[in-house]
Amino acid sequence: MSTPKGILYLIPSLLGDAPVEHSLPSYNIEIIRSLDEFIVEDIRSARRFLIKAKIEKPIDSLTFHLCNEHSKNADINFTMQGLMNGKNAGLISDAGCPSIADPGAEIIQFAHRNNIRVLPLVGPSSILMALISSGLNGQNFAFNGYLPKKEPDRIKALKQLETLVWQKNQTQLFIETPYRNDALLKDILNVCKEETLLCVASDITLISERIKTKPIREWRTSKDSFNDHPAVFLLGKTI
Amino acid sequence: MSTPKGILYLIPSLLGDAPVEHSLPSYNIEIIRSLDEFIVEDIRSARRFLIKAKIEKPIDSLTFHLCNEHSKNADINFTMQGLMNGKNAGLISDAGCPSIADPGAEIIQFAHRNNIRVLPLVGPSSILMALISSGLNGQNFAFNGYLPKKEPDRIKALKQLETLVWQKNQTQLFIETPYRNDALLKDILNVCKEETLLCVASDITLISERIKTKPIREWRTSKDSFNDHPAVFLLGKTI
Repeated sequence: MSTPKGILYLIPSLLGDAPVEHSLPSYNIEIIRSLDEFIVEDIRSARRFLIKAKIEKPIDSLTFHLCNEHSKNADINFTMQGLMNGKNAGLISDAGCPSIADPGAEIIQFAHRNNIRVLPLVGPSSILMALISSGLNGQNFAFNGYLPKKEPDRIKALKQLETLVWQKNQTQLFIETPYRNDALLKDILNVCKEETLLCVASDITLISERIKTKPIREWRTSKDSFNDHPAVFLLGKTI
Repeated sequence: MSTPKGILYLIPSLLGDAPVEHSLPSYNIEIIRSLDEFIVEDIRSARRFLIKAKIEKPIDSLTFHLCNEHSKNADINFTMQGLMNGKNAGLISDAGCPSIADPGAEIIQFAHRNNIRVLPLVGPSSILMALISSGLNGQNFAFNGYLPKKEPDRIKALKQLETLVWQKNQTQLFIETPYRNDALLKDILNVCKEETLLCVASDITLISERIKTKPIREWRTSKDSFNDHPAVFLLGKTI
């Protein structure tokens, strides 16, 4: 008989400095407290998160495996050893949900291939919360990650996304490094049609949260700035 | 001076008979208990949800407005009257998050147009939880709702989605009425390539939850059945 495998819990973390009780079900805290092993995007921010979740064990008694763009493929067998031997582990990303616009997919594919149960916990996702708050079509939508950095690719990408909005009524979501948000907003206002709806959802779950959907025409005359505020951008149309 | 408007809270409900503490932050319960007015997809299921959330007021003292495919556009001014006059309200859908594969977008667009603040609460979304658990590309994905019911449109749609997976590495998500899940699975197994990855995520957050990603080749030799279990289907590729 083969050893029973551990469970890989997908543990959403907080978006910025939001209070735990606003963002996480109490069950998540129970699960977090039951674990000794974590696979994390960044050890410092994972430790900070676990302390905020009032983990009871001494934090130095926990095992952390790094999983990000710098960790090597070859490490994955070592990272997953505990799970393969029956120990549960938690996958934590820097902000929000693991493996959405974040590393982790490789770990999860490994788990599926090796019959390790993957169990997602409920938590905040800026992308999902932006989508539901935007009022834009939630029956058909696409998340595109980051747009190309350079002209003319970036303008071309924006035009293609707007075409999908109008042809397929498919809401288009994308993100940008926060210090470049205003540059992206400027490009959107230059490229898109007056009547296309733009939603910008920033600082989700924080006190400074702002979520606004209005036509490009109205954005052009407002003086909004989103630099240094994590934001999701959405293009869509009126129902 | 204009009257301050109310806040429209977007309140995720439970996916089936999941325990409240597993799916909702305690803050949601606080908010729910503070409200007297709800905009709901179905009154019976909203009342059931509010009772489960241990609402303290007598349920008959609450106001419910219906928002679904049968409610008329003309009603929206009446539905939003409280919010326009400064009363907070909660938008609740039948299962999961409002306005994703669910009504509500119209209400939210009205709110944005009329400067009513839209405030999303954290909660379960079967689509998001399926995506993060699948291990498929979370940097680029599209949700397509329901596929066409009839051949040959359905086969054509599946082929187009598979093409997007391989050409754009865009994970494709879609859903089906639960009693037709096995028919959809059969079509997918007939149409898609051996090496395409399929994830089926069913009964998310329930004890009976099943989430499995494997190549079409392996699905073809397994005897899985998902009829009558709410499920999300995802097509993607190996990292």
